[in-house]
Amino acid sequence: MTTVGIFGAAGYGGIELVRMLLPHPEVEITYLGGHTTVGANLVDEYPHLLGGLDMLIEESDVNKAAQAAELLFFCLPHAVGAGMVAEAIAAGRKVIDFSADYRLKDVATYEAYYEPHPAPQLIEQAVYGLPELHREAVVGTQLCAVPGCYPTGAILALAPACARGLVEPGRIIVDAKSGTSGAGKKLSETTHHAECNESVSAYKVASHRHQPEMVQELSGLGEPVGLTFTPHLIPMTRGILSTVYAILKQPMSPAELVDAYREFYAGERFVQVLDAGKLPGTKHVSGSNNCQIGLAVDESAGLLVAVSAVDNLVKGLAGAAVQCMNLMCGYPEETGVSQYPVWP
Amino acid sequence: MTTVGIFGAAGYGGIELVRMLLPHPEVEITYLGGHTTVGANLVDEYPHLLGGLDMLIEESDVNKAAQAAELLFFCLPHAVGAGMVAEAIAAGRKVIDFSADYRLKDVATYEAYYEPHPAPQLIEQAVYGLPELHREAVVGTQLCAVPGCYPTGAILALAPACARGLVEPGRIIVDAKSGTSGAGKKLSETTHHAECNESVSAYKVASHRHQPEMVQELSGLGEPVGLTFTPHLIPMTRGILSTVYAILKQPMSPAELVDAYREFYAGERFVQVLDAGKLPGTKHVSGSNNCQIGLAVDESAGLLVAVSAVDNLVKGLAGAAVQCMNLMCGYPEETGVSQYPVWP
Amino acid sequence: MTTVGIFGAAGYGGIELVRMLLPHPEVEITYLGGHTTVGANLVDEYPHLLGGLDMLIEESDVNKAAQAAELLFFCLPHAVGAGMVAEAIAAGRKVIDFSADYRLKDVATYEAYYEPHPAPQLIEQAVYGLPELHREAVVGTQLCAVPGCYPTGAILALAPACARGLVEPGRIIVDAKSGTSGAGKKLSETTHHAECNESVSAYKVASHRHQPEMVQELSGLGEPVGLTFTPHLIPMTRGILSTVYAILKQPMSPAELVDAYREFYAGERFVQVLDAGKLPGTKHVSGSNNCQIGLAVDESAGLLVAVSAVDNLVKGLAGAAVQCMNLMCGYPEETGVSQYPVWP
Amino acid sequence: MTTVGIFGAAGYGGIELVRMLLPHPEVEITYLGGHTTVGANLVDEYPHLLGGLDMLIEESDVNKAAQAAELLFFCLPHAVGAGMVAEAIAAGRKVIDFSADYRLKDVATYEAYYEPHPAPQLIEQAVYGLPELHREAVVGTQLCAVPGCYPTGAILALAPACARGLVEPGRIIVDAKSGTSGAGKKLSETTHHAECNESVSAYKVASHRHQPEMVQELSGLGEPVGLTFTPHLIPMTRGILSTVYAILKQPMSPAELVDAYREFYAGERFVQVLDAGKLPGTKHVSGSNNCQIGLAVDESAGLLVAVSAVDNLVKGLAGAAVQCMNLMCGYPEETGVSQYPVWP
Repeated sequence: MTTVGIFGAAGYGGIELVRMLLPHPEVEITYLGGHTTVGANLVDEYPHLLGGLDMLIEESDVNKAAQAAELLFFCLPHAVGAGMVAEAIAAGRKVIDFSADYRLKDVATYEAYYEPHPAPQLIEQAVYGLPELHREAVVGTQLCAVPGCYPTGAILALAPACARGLVEPGRIIVDAKSGTSGAGKKLSETTHHAECNESVSAYKVASHRHQPEMVQELSGLGEPVGLTFTPHLIPMTRGILSTVYAILKQPMSPAELVDAYREFYAGERFVQVLDAGKLPGTKHVSGSNNCQIGLAVDESAGLLVAVSAVDNLVKGLAGAAVQCMNLMCGYPEETGVSQYPVWP
Repeated sequence: MTTVGIFGAAGYGGIELVRMLLPHPEVEITYLGGHTTVGANLVDEYPHLLGGLDMLIEESDVNKAAQAAELLFFCLPHAVGAGMVAEAIAAGRKVIDFSADYRLKDVATYEAYYEPHPAPQLIEQAVYGLPELHREAVVGTQLCAVPGCYPTGAILALAPACARGLVEPGRIIVDAKSGTSGAGKKLSETTHHAECNESVSAYKVASHRHQPEMVQELSGLGEPVGLTFTPHLIPMTRGILSTVYAILKQPMSPAELVDAYREFYAGERFVQVLDAGKLPGTKHVSGSNNCQIGLAVDESAGLLVAVSAVDNLVKGLAGAAVQCMNLMCGYPEETGVSQYPVWP
Repeated sequence: MTTVGIFGAAGYGGIELVRMLLPHPEVEITYLGGHTTVGANLVDEYPHLLGGLDMLIEESDVNKAAQAAELLFFCLPHAVGAGMVAEAIAAGRKVIDFSADYRLKDVATYEAYYEPHPAPQLIEQAVYGLPELHREAVVGTQLCAVPGCYPTGAILALAPACARGLVEPGRIIVDAKSGTSGAGKKLSETTHHAECNESVSAYKVASHRHQPEMVQELSGLGEPVGLTFTPHLIPMTRGILSTVYAILKQPMSPAELVDAYREFYAGERFVQVLDAGKLPGTKHVSGSNNCQIGLAVDESAGLLVAVSAVDNLVKGLAGAAVQCMNLMCGYPEETGVSQYPVWP
Repeated sequence: MTTVGIFGAAGYGGIELVRMLLPHPEVEITYLGGHTTVGANLVDEYPHLLGGLDMLIEESDVNKAAQAAELLFFCLPHAVGAGMVAEAIAAGRKVIDFSADYRLKDVATYEAYYEPHPAPQLIEQAVYGLPELHREAVVGTQLCAVPGCYPTGAILALAPACARGLVEPGRIIVDAKSGTSGAGKKLSETTHHAECNESVSAYKVASHRHQPEMVQELSGLGEPVGLTFTPHLIPMTRGILSTVYAILKQPMSPAELVDAYREFYAGERFVQVLDAGKLPGTKHVSGSNNCQIGLAVDESAGLLVAVSAVDNLVKGLAGAAVQCMNLMCGYPEETGVSQYPVWP
């Protein structure tokens, strides 16, 4: 049994984490920290949790949290929680951080995309929380950085191809389509229903902050990659579909690619490589921690076209966090994250 | 541990049942019967179940099913499975039926709304599977009829008012709004995406088959009710919101109504009566077996306005079925149906 | 040819008005007044208008507008534009007001639902801009109040029944379902995509500000009505479906009701009474100034169930405004508002 | 004034054509031909047209149509209408064909993607109906082939770059996202609301029939292109967003690209090249004949990323057809197709 505290529980990542932790047989939530919602009962903010958690949100206080809980989740925007994370680490607590602060190993890259790094001294010990690539490191770490939602889908779609040297490392393209929950609970014109409903648009072309995460992780598997990333906003709530394009070093059939991907992901509980000829839809993973991958080839162009589907709030965020927590605490990796997708 | 078989697993009700039974700790699925999908692996039809059930659908055969399983679910349209249900009952198996065949106690009413009753001899022993009204009977029955999705929401919204005599039994109005999954997997113009998306419409005004179920159950709680039912199709996948109107016998405040409802539903795990002034949205129960009820009063009209929200495929169908199965088999009622709603 | 000015062009009502006025053969837009958007080109705010209007939004100034234009549209929230409306009237300009300020004839009712009335002296001369009920008055007025979107649908669905004395004036119920554009451009949690998508909810039960408008107009047709109004938010952008219930004084068939309604609306270009047995969907009127009405009867309850569909931003707002403008300026009523619905 | 006949008016392309022709000042619809809908009044099938066309659908008969009308629209699937098109041409009628039959100049390519060509003798005289590339030819032709919806968006996004030699002709990628109306009125699991709603998926990767159209038209502007096309289905009704990737021959800024594109499209009424830094959403063109194009560059990859938005049923189908009809009949090109987008 592990006691856990959550900072930022009232955001979409936090509330999804609560949904997954409440039925977790080895976890007890003992602390909720917030800021704008201090004093509120989480259930008043989120009536779907009625009958579940009956707990007040307190003003964020790491000392108090560290006394109440063995492991702390920080579900806060980048830089905001960095100081608290450092305190929690110093207090000897295990930390799982949802922000971008400890994902990038290179401070200069972080600072080029975000701002002056709030706690660079912690970067070295932090582990990128994608168990499919870093399971052993996650098991042993005190500080786990949950990957961004876009990188999760893109990296899983490309990792076998990059690791096995099947594709050219340059000219990779990631064209991703995300539901609106990825933009979080904060109101914006972009996610105002009447404006985003019945519309699709691209944004932050070649300038999105998740691109360097993809580059870092894929480059770590072999040759340094060059990658163009275009995110799109889709009129649905959950899910990311990543369509990735990479030049095959030599001709391969979809079936051969399926074999190579299945070998790479052998034993992975949450990655499902579909049979050749099949492609995933985001609904096939919605509400679950699964990532489904379909593989196709444009023969005349010598191009791999891989398509991955994840639920951005589960495998793309809170589910990955619980998966990592299980590893960090010695529980079976799928505990509490084995729900089947909700369909239709 | 109970072995179960499912007829019609490839429909929306059946597949939702599979989602809920797979993680159920006391259940093993040992038989899948179908017709148009015979020979297919359920996972090929429904790739969201990959890694879960790996099982072929057989040509429906009650004898075979009765040998393989102790309890049989019939997830078939009305009349289609009636003969098989009779065989299963004769074979001593427990049966949970998703169709309308055994919901109505009055054969003439059934035949006025459906067709000549296929097995009237079974009606008497069948129990209407709404545990909130008939728990003891469900516990002891061999044949449980799962309520219709619309009746579940409407009855739960009105039951306390009718049972306590708070409202006039006549002139009740049920104005219900349902997502498209309620129409099932069968293709139709009505549920063709381009036609139903971005549109709301009413259908079968004062002629829908679910109306007599509401009348039967509410009349059973006190005075014979008169009830007008208008279903609407809403551009969303899951959920039914039922807005019901009934004339208060004497003035009551929302708070007094909340008290009366909470007293009526005391101890019910899946019915949540909201505080006065709060109203549910269907998303607050989506993916869960919960029914949320909000209560308001139009003082000048002396009218109760109650609003209930259910997930039509869970509390409105498969979740209710599992809840009843638990009762029929002696398991804690919430086993396998205690998932929290997926939000947002 | 009429020159027109628009205050509040950057809201949803204003921008929809611009869409309808740009191709209007008798209108030239000569003034745009705003506040938070001053200095912006309307096209930068609304790129769908590219190639149409190329015009800066000025700080709102009635004198300037009155010099530039013969008729002024005020597309502002209630009370905000009242002072300016008074100035414009004093300057001899025709005014069409989108707010609630001049819809209600009874100041006390206005003040009970809104706030102290900002310009009660203008109420008497204002005309409720529903040409189907007040055509002659609209033709002759200097000040036209555009009806609320909900009242438009509800009144049109009930007017013939009330005017002809077909239904009891009490115990009328209006259960309305609106898309999210009805809430306007202002950001809110209620209309945040991830929260309202895939959900239906009721709000302001028996307390919405549009109820007294319905009561006023329907009472004006015959006996004083008693009416309960429940608005619902639906996950779509445009459209209002109003399902109304009223007790028939004596039995009538749907066909008889269709006849009565068609007689009442004879010659009306924008009201379409469907054949008995047919019911409208909001998509059938989307983007158009049409109102479609379907009629049904619950015989056993002696209840009329009428269903009307309007596009809340067209017949429910900007289209009605143009229709009234045509009448006030002597143009054929359908000029510029005869677009067919966009379907699917 | 031109009399026109329509075959296949009851499909989505046909009905959208009717919406645009009804208010067209130079057109009179004098014939409707169908097959499964023979004998029906179009308005019964499509009640949004109430008050517009009151006309029966006849069994398709080219002789009769040729007597009734000067110009014939064939809104039929590929191969189905080819024989009738040949008859109509022989009868001296102008023809606008919505199918793929006369788009591809190379019979072998057609037959590789479709089936044996039903009327290869007509290919040479047919003109690809994209006035932005082939205006003069459209003006003079008797047989106009309306481009596919995907090709329209992709070609317009790439034409200036290919024509001016700004990009490498190989390794072009078109990643397109389409609403469900693109799949037409025919029912399918893929467009069943409950299944496609809240989901995004790719389909026919590197094998879609629209790819050779893109290759033909873009190759015709300069060097032979190599192009990979991935279509996606998006949970919305209308619109296609095409995100295209092409390798820049030499570094260019977005502003330079905007200049080049604007020069290429100078004088085009329906193509709108956005300012550098701006990207279109499909809602910005919904219901209109506009195509909006946004331009971005991934500097480090030397990649052009162009994004175009069209309404698949207007500029992608019926609007383009009317635009071509205007050219073929000598009317101003924008007659009847100058509606502004419906927003929001």
